[in-house]
Amino acid sequence: MVNTDMSTPTVYPFVAIVGQEKLKKSLILNVINPSLSGVLIRGEKGTAKSTAVRALADLLPEIDVGEADPFQSDPHDPKTMAPDVRERFEAGETLPVRSRKVRVVELPISATEDRVVGTLDLETALKEGRKKIEPGLLASANRGILYVDEVNLLDDHVVDVLLDSAAMGVNTIEREGISFSHPARFTLVGTMNPEEGDLRPQLLDRFGLCVHVEGLNTPGERVEVVKRRAAFEEDPEAFAAQWAEETAKLKDAVAVAIQRCPKVQASDAILFSIAERSLKLGVDGHRSDIVMLKAAKALAAWGGRDDVTPADVEEAATLALAHRMRRRPFEDILGPQAA
Amino acid sequence: MVNTDMSTPTVYPFVAIVGQEKLKKSLILNVINPSLSGVLIRGEKGTAKSTAVRALADLLPEIDVGEADPFQSDPHDPKTMAPDVRERFEAGETLPVRSRKVRVVELPISATEDRVVGTLDLETALKEGRKKIEPGLLASANRGILYVDEVNLLDDHVVDVLLDSAAMGVNTIEREGISFSHPARFTLVGTMNPEEGDLRPQLLDRFGLCVHVEGLNTPGERVEVVKRRAAFEEDPEAFAAQWAEETAKLKDAVAVAIQRCPKVQASDAILFSIAERSLKLGVDGHRSDIVMLKAAKALAAWGGRDDVTPADVEEAATLALAHRMRRRPFEDILGPQAA
Amino acid sequence: MVNTDMSTPTVYPFVAIVGQEKLKKSLILNVINPSLSGVLIRGEKGTAKSTAVRALADLLPEIDVGEADPFQSDPHDPKTMAPDVRERFEAGETLPVRSRKVRVVELPISATEDRVVGTLDLETALKEGRKKIEPGLLASANRGILYVDEVNLLDDHVVDVLLDSAAMGVNTIEREGISFSHPARFTLVGTMNPEEGDLRPQLLDRFGLCVHVEGLNTPGERVEVVKRRAAFEEDPEAFAAQWAEETAKLKDAVAVAIQRCPKVQASDAILFSIAERSLKLGVDGHRSDIVMLKAAKALAAWGGRDDVTPADVEEAATLALAHRMRRRPFEDILGPQAA
Amino acid sequence: MVNTDMSTPTVYPFVAIVGQEKLKKSLILNVINPSLSGVLIRGEKGTAKSTAVRALADLLPEIDVGEADPFQSDPHDPKTMAPDVRERFEAGETLPVRSRKVRVVELPISATEDRVVGTLDLETALKEGRKKIEPGLLASANRGILYVDEVNLLDDHVVDVLLDSAAMGVNTIEREGISFSHPARFTLVGTMNPEEGDLRPQLLDRFGLCVHVEGLNTPGERVEVVKRRAAFEEDPEAFAAQWAEETAKLKDAVAVAIQRCPKVQASDAILFSIAERSLKLGVDGHRSDIVMLKAAKALAAWGGRDDVTPADVEEAATLALAHRMRRRPFEDILGPQAA
Amino acid sequence: MVNTDMSTPTVYPFVAIVGQEKLKKSLILNVINPSLSGVLIRGEKGTAKSTAVRALADLLPEIDVGEADPFQSDPHDPKTMAPDVRERFEAGETLPVRSRKVRVVELPISATEDRVVGTLDLETALKEGRKKIEPGLLASANRGILYVDEVNLLDDHVVDVLLDSAAMGVNTIEREGISFSHPARFTLVGTMNPEEGDLRPQLLDRFGLCVHVEGLNTPGERVEVVKRRAAFEEDPEAFAAQWAEETAKLKDAVAVAIQRCPKVQASDAILFSIAERSLKLGVDGHRSDIVMLKAAKALAAWGGRDDVTPADVEEAATLALAHRMRRRPFEDILGPQAA
Amino acid sequence: MVNTDMSTPTVYPFVAIVGQEKLKKSLILNVINPSLSGVLIRGEKGTAKSTAVRALADLLPEIDVGEADPFQSDPHDPKTMAPDVRERFEAGETLPVRSRKVRVVELPISATEDRVVGTLDLETALKEGRKKIEPGLLASANRGILYVDEVNLLDDHVVDVLLDSAAMGVNTIEREGISFSHPARFTLVGTMNPEEGDLRPQLLDRFGLCVHVEGLNTPGERVEVVKRRAAFEEDPEAFAAQWAEETAKLKDAVAVAIQRCPKVQASDAILFSIAERSLKLGVDGHRSDIVMLKAAKALAAWGGRDDVTPADVEEAATLALAHRMRRRPFEDILGPQAA
Repeated sequence: MVNTDMSTPTVYPFVAIVGQEKLKKSLILNVINPSLSGVLIRGEKGTAKSTAVRALADLLPEIDVGEADPFQSDPHDPKTMAPDVRERFEAGETLPVRSRKVRVVELPISATEDRVVGTLDLETALKEGRKKIEPGLLASANRGILYVDEVNLLDDHVVDVLLDSAAMGVNTIEREGISFSHPARFTLVGTMNPEEGDLRPQLLDRFGLCVHVEGLNTPGERVEVVKRRAAFEEDPEAFAAQWAEETAKLKDAVAVAIQRCPKVQASDAILFSIAERSLKLGVDGHRSDIVMLKAAKALAAWGGRDDVTPADVEEAATLALAHRMRRRPFEDILGPQAA
Repeated sequence: MVNTDMSTPTVYPFVAIVGQEKLKKSLILNVINPSLSGVLIRGEKGTAKSTAVRALADLLPEIDVGEADPFQSDPHDPKTMAPDVRERFEAGETLPVRSRKVRVVELPISATEDRVVGTLDLETALKEGRKKIEPGLLASANRGILYVDEVNLLDDHVVDVLLDSAAMGVNTIEREGISFSHPARFTLVGTMNPEEGDLRPQLLDRFGLCVHVEGLNTPGERVEVVKRRAAFEEDPEAFAAQWAEETAKLKDAVAVAIQRCPKVQASDAILFSIAERSLKLGVDGHRSDIVMLKAAKALAAWGGRDDVTPADVEEAATLALAHRMRRRPFEDILGPQAA
Repeated sequence: MVNTDMSTPTVYPFVAIVGQEKLKKSLILNVINPSLSGVLIRGEKGTAKSTAVRALADLLPEIDVGEADPFQSDPHDPKTMAPDVRERFEAGETLPVRSRKVRVVELPISATEDRVVGTLDLETALKEGRKKIEPGLLASANRGILYVDEVNLLDDHVVDVLLDSAAMGVNTIEREGISFSHPARFTLVGTMNPEEGDLRPQLLDRFGLCVHVEGLNTPGERVEVVKRRAAFEEDPEAFAAQWAEETAKLKDAVAVAIQRCPKVQASDAILFSIAERSLKLGVDGHRSDIVMLKAAKALAAWGGRDDVTPADVEEAATLALAHRMRRRPFEDILGPQAA
Repeated sequence: MVNTDMSTPTVYPFVAIVGQEKLKKSLILNVINPSLSGVLIRGEKGTAKSTAVRALADLLPEIDVGEADPFQSDPHDPKTMAPDVRERFEAGETLPVRSRKVRVVELPISATEDRVVGTLDLETALKEGRKKIEPGLLASANRGILYVDEVNLLDDHVVDVLLDSAAMGVNTIEREGISFSHPARFTLVGTMNPEEGDLRPQLLDRFGLCVHVEGLNTPGERVEVVKRRAAFEEDPEAFAAQWAEETAKLKDAVAVAIQRCPKVQASDAILFSIAERSLKLGVDGHRSDIVMLKAAKALAAWGGRDDVTPADVEEAATLALAHRMRRRPFEDILGPQAA
Repeated sequence: MVNTDMSTPTVYPFVAIVGQEKLKKSLILNVINPSLSGVLIRGEKGTAKSTAVRALADLLPEIDVGEADPFQSDPHDPKTMAPDVRERFEAGETLPVRSRKVRVVELPISATEDRVVGTLDLETALKEGRKKIEPGLLASANRGILYVDEVNLLDDHVVDVLLDSAAMGVNTIEREGISFSHPARFTLVGTMNPEEGDLRPQLLDRFGLCVHVEGLNTPGERVEVVKRRAAFEEDPEAFAAQWAEETAKLKDAVAVAIQRCPKVQASDAILFSIAERSLKLGVDGHRSDIVMLKAAKALAAWGGRDDVTPADVEEAATLALAHRMRRRPFEDILGPQAA
Repeated sequence: MVNTDMSTPTVYPFVAIVGQEKLKKSLILNVINPSLSGVLIRGEKGTAKSTAVRALADLLPEIDVGEADPFQSDPHDPKTMAPDVRERFEAGETLPVRSRKVRVVELPISATEDRVVGTLDLETALKEGRKKIEPGLLASANRGILYVDEVNLLDDHVVDVLLDSAAMGVNTIEREGISFSHPARFTLVGTMNPEEGDLRPQLLDRFGLCVHVEGLNTPGERVEVVKRRAAFEEDPEAFAAQWAEETAKLKDAVAVAIQRCPKVQASDAILFSIAERSLKLGVDGHRSDIVMLKAAKALAAWGGRDDVTPADVEEAATLALAHRMRRRPFEDILGPQAA
């Protein structure tokens, strides 16, 4: 793959985003526990949706990647390697490793299935008469964040492929008699404006969490947004430097929570309260329970606790249930604190 | 066919699925008698549908397969071999045989007819100017399980092809003047969410059995689901090991029932009760009678009996009739035990 | 044409089909007089439609075919030969002839026009730079039976092509400046489930006869169906052997009727009664009269008579008129014996 | 163009068609004066529409055609020759000429624009790297009859192309930078069943004449139809021989009328009566007047007269006006003799 | 570009068209001032629309064209030359010039964008591996008349391209990285039958003038139409000769008006009356004013005047305003003389 | 890229446009601050929309461009260079630089995504077997103006691509495994006629400013339009010369404002008044605030002020809010001065 990117521009710092606490929390939880299956961000245009996602990479610990590995598999864990990389690893070859930031891969609305999944490398096929895989966006997104703006406008087949990969952690390229699988573990973040059509329920359910965002509604907050934006546009580097300390603090907190999360425990009482919530709301299936538990554990880890509390479940429910209910009036049932 | 799969991940054990007895029973019956023409699983998202199907392979006796045979035909039965394999067999060539698990082939929603049926091998055609068949998913599924998630979203032509092959046990590749037939006997399992559109009656009728699944509705069961899932995600191998004994027991029981099934008898009284059920419910055609008889025999075999009992018919009816009725109110007619 | 079929499976015997007398009669009449323009079988799913058609070939006298003739033309009648075969015949070349069963060619719903009509042989074109015809399904069906399951779901263009060939007895391949005609005389049998959309009147009219089938409605008959089916599935060869004598008897009767049919006479009174039926029912055009006469003659031949009787016309009318009427209430006019 | 037709089958004789006088008259008029722009035959299925058109060729004087001229241009009239033929003619080359029947070219419903108009000869392009025209059906139809069954189901673009050629007498092939014109003068005959959708007014207007046909409605006529059809099917050659004399007589009469037609005169009174008819009926434009005059002259020639009579106009009006009226109730205005 | 046209047929003389004064006037005005942006002719089928347009070329002074210039640019004005022609001109090369009639290029309804705009020359690309432009219909129409029959049925993209070229006088071919511009100044004439769908307002506005035509409504005129048509069809050359003098007179008058037009003056009172008309009728934008002024000047030139009169404005308004109004009742406002 | 343009025609001077002050102001503001994200011009056909945009280039200071750089990057700022240009720059190569006018690139309605974004250079791929980028319209528009007439008729995918590039200042070409990014900073100007369908809200929001234009409604102004247009058409060069001084004055004023703009300050009171406006009108998100601030600063700079005044905000609001409101009655809320 030829890759001739321009030098990456400085992104707006995550910590400088004014308000939008639920949005930021849902992203952080997915970073703490990537098995949460992503976030769907629903809401009006012109809020900080894209900014928050693009800034996310700066909060994550760097990862080790093999130098020549287009699938970015973990160079220390052969089970997650792409087949040819693994072969060389197991043959005892020492592969150069470098440490780098987690990638935020943006999936354009017009992306074809070929571009997402990967395809045959035409150049090699024509010149050398030999089949070679051309990895797609799912390869680039492995161990990173896959961001789809306006996910509801995406071609249905592409959405299916995305969510299948997100669920299985594997992407399979099947073209012209080749079947090739590679790891594709990523945090999926989608945004959508519900005014322009919804996702079908089957697909909604595959997003772990869902938040609703809207513009800030006090003049003070809005002025702060404009001031920071203006400062950022004027001199991005200087602005980022100004927020560097706060960014570093958040990054450290995330790293601590990532370590703690697998050890968080949930009592049976907690588990029962989760099941009862799903039953009361009449959500389909069991995915809501599993997601609520994972989100609650991530919240506990984020809060520095080793055990899930009822408040963690309460907060997890506001992120995991809304998009899975068959009935509408969400606030009626959960009460005002759910809003 | 180049095939570079990653090492197969451990699947969730069939026996560890909480509840969903009808779903599990319908799958086991098809495994006992593959001529039952598959199962259609209708129901809400997030239930154990996919998990159950993927786990099915572990319950089946291993099969012998010829080393280089993409059609996985039985190396001991020339009548079921693909033409070229058979030719070599009949020429007295000793073909290497290996024993392996039955395969669960997943058919992606976006699969084209070419991918399903098979096509010409472009590489050979271009380089050697000679036509060679590129087997499709129906070849991979021979003697195994073909699983289609969201079968109601599949392209109509592909569904037709699938059901034709399932009914005839043969797949025919016709491209560029080549006509090539190979055995394609498989257990077809489809899932669908009826909220997203139904299958046309013609296609519904081709599925032998049909079950409806929904989420479990007691907190206790739901907690159990979440606990097991969490345990599995934490350490799949350890979890599978925990259930290994129960899995082995079920596998043995299946093997016994497979042996017994062809010997099960049905009295004329049983046959008349089957015919009367179909007539009373006004189902179209005779497929319901034939399927009910087969299902009842498989149930008897599963129950360790050599004769079909009225209770076997009763249970078979709940699996074979619902999707074939022109009228809706199923429970009204069969009574409460049908639910 | 490369052709690598598996050994043909044993088919369910025609004589073992329970009930469905009109269906069987209409097929036999077309076999006796192939100029009847085929049968359209309308009715519910899961009846013996496909079984009856596939079994038909066993009732027909074998035919002589030239060894290397993809058009299966009569090796004794140069007028019906494909052009190149005829050329060699007329040049005095002795062509090897073999006698074989009439073929039942199934036309899959997804068949393209190319596959049906025939096309250019790409292989020859690319390698030898010379145009060669690749015969289609209409070539395979010459002098045989062409069977289209769910004909109402077929692409309109393909239906047009089919019915044109059926009417003219000739198929013309026109591709890339080649125009090539070959004989295509076949008995066309179509099935359809009227619930899934109808044929347009123009096409309905092109089928000579039309029957409506439904499932049997006495438990005794249904049990018989299931018993025979089970016996057949258990051991097809043994089952066929059981019915071999009855099959042979029917085959002989068909052969006799084929010989007698061209000699059957119809009086003017008979002809007038036919014309009056069409006028009374308000059918469009004259095809109904012609078909009724042919069907009545075939019925007479089948009944061993040399003259058409009013009862033959009565029975022919039930097969030839229903699908050609502009008004619905058929039974009202023809009376109870028409059902 | 490779052309490997089977020996042409004997067609049903025009003179043996029972009834359908308007249909036969309209075809004869177009044969007498090909500038009448064809006939549109509307009516129910199963009438003698196709039979009449196919039989038409036998009524026409044979034409002289250059041996190797795919455009069938007149070998005596350089102005109508295709460019390359003309070049050779003007260079003084003596081209072999043969006399043959006028062709009835059938345009299949599924014909693409390429097939109708002509295209590039791929073979020559690939092998010799030189562009050569591959003539289409319009070339085959030059100086003959072009027959389109179910013209209302034809692709709109193809209809446009057809009618443009019919109006201009020229067909232009434009592909890949080649622009090639050849003569395309033909009598266009279309049939349609109005139940299956109409032509748009613009296209209706381009057909010179229009007749409505329906099945015969006396038993005697119907019996005659069936008798003749049966006799024809039994032995086409013998049947044609039986009608040979009558056919010859009609052919002679047509030849005489063709000679007389250009000399027929119409008085001013006749012309005014034509104009008044169009005005009274509110037809669009002037094409109706011109067609009525031409049809009336052809009728006079057919009747052996040198002057158009009011009765000729009356009859011409029944053929030329019905399909051009904006208002429906045709019979009301023209009176009973128009039916 | 290979070009093998048949010898051009004689066209019906413009001066022999009966009535249709507005149609003829609008065409003449565009010929006098080609910057009028063409005419849209709306009206019923079978009127003299096509005839008038095709005859137009005979009224125009011949133009000088470079021998080998597919863009027909003016060989005396380098600024209007196609780039390569200009290069050779400026290098002092003497290019052969010939004088010929203005061309009427007909754009078929089925024309693709490639054919209209021009494309790559495949032949040169394949054989010489070098990109060469294949000029389209817009190149052929340069300095001539571009005629689109049924413009409302044209593909929207093609209409856009046409009107852009008409407005800018330039056509740009952009294919495979080539961007090539050539002059494309032509008088655009479109016809349409409003019964078959309208143009969108944006496109309507781009036609300078618009006239509505209908069939003549006195028997005398209609008879004259038929007589002349018959005479023309019988012997086109003789008919044209009969009208040659009148044609020559009109041609001279046009030539004089073309010379006079640029010198015609309009007083401020005239300009104000134009602006007030547009305001009163509520037309969108300013194009109506500009077109009215140009049309009025052309009318003055045609009338032999050096100054625009109120009557010229009156007449120009009937041609320039009708298709630009948002409100319908045109005659109400302009009064009876507008009809 | 082969590029063979005709010599550029003289454009109508910006300063000679009569009226349309809001349109002209919005364009000037974008020129002063290109980060304003363009203008959407809504309004009736035939107003000066296109003229104003095309004339805009003459108001802008010339830019330095590298001689052989298809991306027109700034030859003095390596960060904005296309990768290969940058490589040579950083290798110390001295690249020839020329100063030229800013480009107005028109994007045709029929532009494909390939043409807009860029694609592979087929010629190089085929001949040299090496992949080379073929830059698209977004490369041509870099550092210039991109003009889309009838933006509401553009293909949705193309609009998405445009607005993404406009927002990020970067265009990425992804084809056949190549991923190539280049700077694409441009002022986007779109026009649309709301009668022919609107943009979806998501896209509307991406245009910084929006103005509504209609035809002038006093006869005096309209006469002036026509007079100037006539003068321009008669002799474009002379007309432009007549307005040269005024053009130069405007150009100088623009240059001064461009320098001043980055230094303009806005007090907190100003910022709060901006936020309150958005809240009061219920616009979605924060983009309206940011755009209002930028527009107000550009207005201050244009007015020669160093601080934003309430009047600047007032005027900015009329340009930035109308297309972002969920509710319609704009004038009701802002009062008469907003019209």
